[in-house]
This record gives sequence, structure tokens and C-alpha cells, in this order.
Amino acid sequence: MSDRVHIYEVSPRDGLQNEPEVVSTDDKLALIGGLVAAGFTDIEVTSFVRPSWIPQLSDAAELIARLPRHDHVRYWALVPNMRGLERALDGELGHVATFMSASETHNRKNVNRTRLESLAGLREVIATAKEEDLVVRSYVSTAFGCPYEGRVPIDDVVTVTRALYEAGADHIALGDTTGMGDPVLVQQVVKAVAAAGVPLDHIALHMHDTQGTALANVLSGYLAGVRTFDGSIAGVGGCPYAPGASGNAATEDLVHMFQAMGVETGVDLDGAAATGAVLADVLGRDLPGRFHKYWLGARIRNAATRTA
Amino acid sequence: MSDRVHIYEVSPRDGLQNEPEVVSTDDKLALIGGLVAAGFTDIEVTSFVRPSWIPQLSDAAELIARLPRHDHVRYWALVPNMRGLERALDGELGHVATFMSASETHNRKNVNRTRLESLAGLREVIATAKEEDLVVRSYVSTAFGCPYEGRVPIDDVVTVTRALYEAGADHIALGDTTGMGDPVLVQQVVKAVAAAGVPLDHIALHMHDTQGTALANVLSGYLAGVRTFDGSIAGVGGCPYAPGASGNAATEDLVHMFQAMGVETGVDLDGAAATGAVLADVLGRDLPGRFHKYWLGARIRNAATRTA
Repeated sequence: MSDRVHIYEVSPRDGLQNEPEVVSTDDKLALIGGLVAAGFTDIEVTSFVRPSWIPQLSDAAELIARLPRHDHVRYWALVPNMRGLERALDGELGHVATFMSASETHNRKNVNRTRLESLAGLREVIATAKEEDLVVRSYVSTAFGCPYEGRVPIDDVVTVTRALYEAGADHIALGDTTGMGDPVLVQQVVKAVAAAGVPLDHIALHMHDTQGTALANVLSGYLAGVRTFDGSIAGVGGCPYAPGASGNAATEDLVHMFQAMGVETGVDLDGAAATGAVLADVLGRDLPGRFHKYWLGARIRNAATRTA
Repeated sequence: MSDRVHIYEVSPRDGLQNEPEVVSTDDKLALIGGLVAAGFTDIEVTSFVRPSWIPQLSDAAELIARLPRHDHVRYWALVPNMRGLERALDGELGHVATFMSASETHNRKNVNRTRLESLAGLREVIATAKEEDLVVRSYVSTAFGCPYEGRVPIDDVVTVTRALYEAGADHIALGDTTGMGDPVLVQQVVKAVAAAGVPLDHIALHMHDTQGTALANVLSGYLAGVRTFDGSIAGVGGCPYAPGASGNAATEDLVHMFQAMGVETGVDLDGAAATGAVLADVLGRDLPGRFHKYWLGARIRNAATRTA
């Protein structure tokens, strides 16, 4: 079962976007610095939505201007439309992510468009991004369930995923927006997407732990052949438009599980756990991730033992 | 993948035994009543260890005398030795559980005996219990890692498991005492135990979520053929003798995952979630389980919607 997986870190954007208190640009840059030091190479740093939508991300331009640039690190920004794409191009960001939902109701509430309107708009955004030699990731939200509609037909997930892939998206991230997925559904969706002609090396899983199943779902996706998984350090974040949504899969928990399984992640587990522990301290509250707490407790016990 | 699993609930014993405040017998009976109402049929209610060891369980005799008896509900008590077994017999309890560790250091620190001394003693306890027509479950602690020794040789886990099975134990519960297991190790241990001649329908997995992998490990055990899983409602509890150990697998998270997978548990998910939410309220603190919080949040939102 040994293999290699790739972790895509979303904490600066998806993690912080619905924090009650606006996190300062300096604190975000410190978080990003910790992630880079821990070996993360794909980090979603912000979103070019209208600042009034998500005050947490209104510092997008400044943040991107101040990013510590490294050849091996890819910084991603969410772009809802052509205007967002233009702002990403202004910031000389080479990697952008689009988003729409697999379910009609969530798509309407999230972006105030029908799914067909979103697909038409995203085709233009993706085509323009590719002309500009950008790398494009496209999120398919509510791919494993919709908070408004419940179960989402797998055919709808396949149709949207395939349309985005054919539109030129380099990567498709299937999002379990409110943690409604289960290991069997994850297998069914992944197999259906692959059977529809979207190669699994273009598929990522973006799981939320709202109902406790994120790691089990990630394991199921791994067993089904997916090798890219999204995480948010310490499990911070959720979807501001989805009732009940909270807690992305905790990155350090993913990294720990895969490392323990003998699956290479390229991430330093201690560095990831430390970054999660520091973020919990910065935000001044308990964060849902498990491993960073275990890691911190072990260090405290070890220190006590040494001084005893 | 659809099938049926059996849930063994440990919250009254393993869950509450290291609570900082002693939980009253009345509160324990309320918890047990909630568990029975939710459809749990195997509940580990207490332990006949020396009261001075674990004050939380010093009410064992009174608790057992006051248990609401139902033909379909099996109440279990932990018995460390012959004296404990006698107390279980005095209480007319038909189901007892023994325990020892797969690793030498944890066994010494936990019961102050070598593993061979424990095996010799447990053979006598199990033989006597069987003569009295009791059903016996035997825990093998540190089956997936030892907090003192690290990785535990799979051969040691197999040797102890097989010895207890041959001694007459009806069920063997492999315990991940400090949550060190991972999905690959779980598969390796389960397959090794089965290959050594212990039928998997006599094996249970008792996972802890200390490092976040409990549900993924349960899924891996399910895929390897295990059908009995231990849980503690709301994830309460841990092992008082193992540094860093905290949080049994949360029962309602297990039940939710299996139910979502189409795997029957015989437990009412709403009842399990409600019992977890009530226990968190009784203990007056946040408990690590995920699903009971999601369930409570959904009910609050629904109530708000109805009154809006």
C-alpha cells in the first residue's frame, strides 16, 4: 500500500476566511512561513472575492505582494470570476483556483448563479488563465452531499467535474463542503469520475471533518487511487455559506496518518504539528486537529521528564 | 461493502475512569439508561479493581446492584484478577473482561506483573469464569504500539492473543491504548491474528483517537474483516496509565460512519448523539467526539428555523 501522496494546504484561505476576528496580514505571513518551512509546496493563500464578502481576505493584494517567493513553492488564490483572475494576474500569481458546486441550491446560495451559468463563466476564466500560462485548480463543492439538498447525484458530480476538466482545469478538487461523505460514497464518486475519463492524477479530495469522517474518507480515497489531499493545519476553517460546516481535515493528522502508513508526503510532521500548535496559540482557541495537541503534550511531558 | 457491525460501549468504565471529578452513581446510571435506550446491547459498566486504584469506579458494587436489567442487554465489568472475578460473581454479572498488555513495560506499569505472570493468572481467571458460565472478553492493550517501547512486535500481539483465546476467552479486544495504530498496521495485526488461528468473529478492535486516526483505523479493521468495534460515547476517556492517552474512538462517530456506509449497527444514531451531548453537559466540558456536536448544532439550527 506504500506510495506517495501530495498535500495541498488551504489554511491561509479556507482556514482563516471565517474566523470571527480578522487575522492580520503579518500573522498570515507567519503562518505561511511556518508552512513553507515544514515543507508544504502548494499553499492556497487567499481569495480574490469582493472584499465586502469576506473581510478576512480583503488584504489579498498586500498579502500576495509580501509572499516569501521560493522556486519550489506554489501559491494559489481563489478566483470567483474574470475580475478575480485579473487581480491574480496583477499580483503575478501563477496558480489560481475556481469554484462551483455540484448541487444547484448550494451553487445559487454561494455564487448566486445556476450551475450552467457558473460552468459558462468558468470556461471563460479557465481559458483565459491557460492563455496566460496559469495553472488552474477547479473546486467542485458539495461533491459528497449538499446541506440544502442532501445526497447529490453522482452523475451531477461527474458531469461538473468532466466539464471543468474538458474546459482545461489542470486539477479538480472534489469538496466535501459539509463533511457529509462516507468511505463508501467516496469510493463510488472517485470511481465514477475516473470511469468518465478524468484521470485520477488530476483529482484531489478536499474533505471536511464536520461529522468526524474526514480521515476515514481520505483513507478511502487513497485506497481508490487518489493521491492529492487538501488539508488545513490544525483543522482550522470551514465553509461560511454552508450551515454546520466546520473543520477542514487537519493537515497534520493527514500527514501523521500517511507517514505512519509508510506513505511519503514530503512534509515534515514535527514542522506541521508545530505550525498547528502556533496557529491555535495565535487564534487563542482550541482548534479541532488532533495530532498537533498530541505532539504538544508529548513535548511538554518530555521536557518535564528531562527536568525531573 | 455493506454488512453488519457490532458496537461495544465502554463509556461508563473506560470513559469515566479517569475523569478529574468523580461521577456520581446516579449520573452513571442515567448514562447507562441513555445507552440502553439508544439500542446498545453490550455496555462495560465498571471495573473491579481495588477502589484505591481508581476512585471513579469505587461504586462498582452499588452500580451493578442498581443496573436496569434487560434480557437483551449484556453488562460487562473489568476484572483484574480472581478477587475481581469473585466480586463480579457476587454481583451476578454474567460478562467479565480481563486485561493485560502486549508489551512488557506497559504490562508491568499497568498491573505490576510480567506478561508471563499475567498470562498464568488470567488462565486461572478465565477457566474459573467459564466454569461459572460467564462470558469472557480479554483485552490485549498496546496491541498497536506501546507508549514506553514504541512499536510492539506483531508476533508478541499474536502470541498473547492466541494464548488468551486458547485459555478460553470468548472475545479478544485488541487495544490501541495510546492511539499509535495506523491503517496499515491494523491490517497487518488483524491478518496475523487470523493467520494464527484466532477467528475474526472473536476479535474486537478497541481504538483510541489520541493521534486522530481512530476512525481510519476502524475502517481499516472493517476492511480486514473485523466486525466488532469498541467505542466510548462522545469520545470520553482514555487509559490512566498511559501518558498521552486520551479519547476513545467516539461511539456516535463510529455509528454515523457505518450507518452512512450502509452498514447496520443496531444502534439509533440520534439516541447515541443525544447521549453524547447529554454526557458533555453532565461533565460540563467539551468532549472530543465530532458527530454529537454536529447533531446538536443541526438541532439548534432547525429549531431556530422553525421559530424564525
